[in-house]
Amino acid sequence: MSYPVELLTLFPGMVSGYLGASILGKAQEKGLISVTLTDVRDFAEGKHRVTDDAPYGGGAGMVMKPEPLVAAIEAARARLPGAKALLMSPRGPTFTQATARELARHEAGLILVCGRYEGVDERVMPFLDGELSLGDFVLTGGEVAAMAVVDAVARLVPGVLGNEASSVAESFEEGLLEHPHYTRPPVFRGAEVPAVLQSGDHARIARWRRWKAIKLTQERRPDLFARLVFSKADQKLLAREEEAL
Amino acid sequence: MSYPVELLTLFPGMVSGYLGASILGKAQEKGLISVTLTDVRDFAEGKHRVTDDAPYGGGAGMVMKPEPLVAAIEAARARLPGAKALLMSPRGPTFTQATARELARHEAGLILVCGRYEGVDERVMPFLDGELSLGDFVLTGGEVAAMAVVDAVARLVPGVLGNEASSVAESFEEGLLEHPHYTRPPVFRGAEVPAVLQSGDHARIARWRRWKAIKLTQERRPDLFARLVFSKADQKLLAREEEAL
Repeated sequence: MSYPVELLTLFPGMVSGYLGASILGKAQEKGLISVTLTDVRDFAEGKHRVTDDAPYGGGAGMVMKPEPLVAAIEAARARLPGAKALLMSPRGPTFTQATARELARHEAGLILVCGRYEGVDERVMPFLDGELSLGDFVLTGGEVAAMAVVDAVARLVPGVLGNEASSVAESFEEGLLEHPHYTRPPVFRGAEVPAVLQSGDHARIARWRRWKAIKLTQERRPDLFARLVFSKADQKLLAREEEAL
Repeated sequence: MSYPVELLTLFPGMVSGYLGASILGKAQEKGLISVTLTDVRDFAEGKHRVTDDAPYGGGAGMVMKPEPLVAAIEAARARLPGAKALLMSPRGPTFTQATARELARHEAGLILVCGRYEGVDERVMPFLDGELSLGDFVLTGGEVAAMAVVDAVARLVPGVLGNEASSVAESFEEGLLEHPHYTRPPVFRGAEVPAVLQSGDHARIARWRRWKAIKLTQERRPDLFARLVFSKADQKLLAREEEAL
């Protein structure tokens, strides 16, 4: 079973370097995910293969024409029946770890459409399953947003991360930010690794890490903290001071 | 004046393709922005140039060692005095268009540090100006997040977008999602371009676009809508039906 992803873009060269490297590259070599890059320009007609045109009603910038995009979406859907086809767009719902988990479970795969220019002709929307936004900021195109989605989804596909445990004890998986990490040397420019982490007492280390993760979430992300539900053990833990964990 | 950006990463090859292409590539050719990629491994010592090690206290994954990262940050700060040095990390405040505007105004530039592996040794934090998160999701590393930040910031640097108007009438610049766009052909698979956009009546087109942008924000992003402040003209506009604009 390989998780299939297809990216529709006018600039395949912008994304190939990222998607072929490191963990994502290895996942493709192992056949755990497959990433296909489709150049939308290949679906444009005429000698000049025009993919954009001026907006109706005037204004700055160019709009991506509907014909090549819809033809590219239909070709991708024929290759990946049942895949979710989403346009990367600031108008979509915001991508979160919950979305990543949901998409990773959708074994039929993912078709991500990258917009460029001022926007995409509105009549493309009925040919998609929806829009997806990386966040409340504006990018020059959907490519970097699509790369982020592929990255976040791919690492949840079983086998992609060498160590399965890595994808569990991480930020947002439980609605928590992650606890601090330390590695060698034991003293770096005068700063020591906390003694608890060198104690060898695994139960105490686990308590310390959970305490730190919850306190960090409370301090930095009160919005996430407000949604947490604490067990009795957590409540007891949080009543303690750091030194007494 | 060129806006300077330096990226610190273990995988310069993952980001060079994206940052050298399209609008960002042209902005560098024109000298409007400068992007330097620094390989953190060049700052690691010993024959094997080790950049990561096992976490104190046990657990899955590897942690980025403090020495090479801090040496790379200090070298970048020497080249770009006054630049903001930020670690891409899910523990940071969430990047938004307001952050992009603030960073674009910071002419001393930007140093973005990309974490990999399980995380970064906590003792690196005092050498940074802060952390920055792309959103509430987990990536295999900070590289794609850094590319998104560079993209969003660079397009706000004066001259980078061919048409200065493009960066104003866009999603989030006013706390609004963008109105729908249309281009030729006038009829695509039975769907027509709205008559108002073909009317040539520019005042009416402007009213329609604003009405659409506000209604779309209300429907899709009640959180953004709740923060909008409407002028008298907007209030009158919103009381109308779409057909009567």
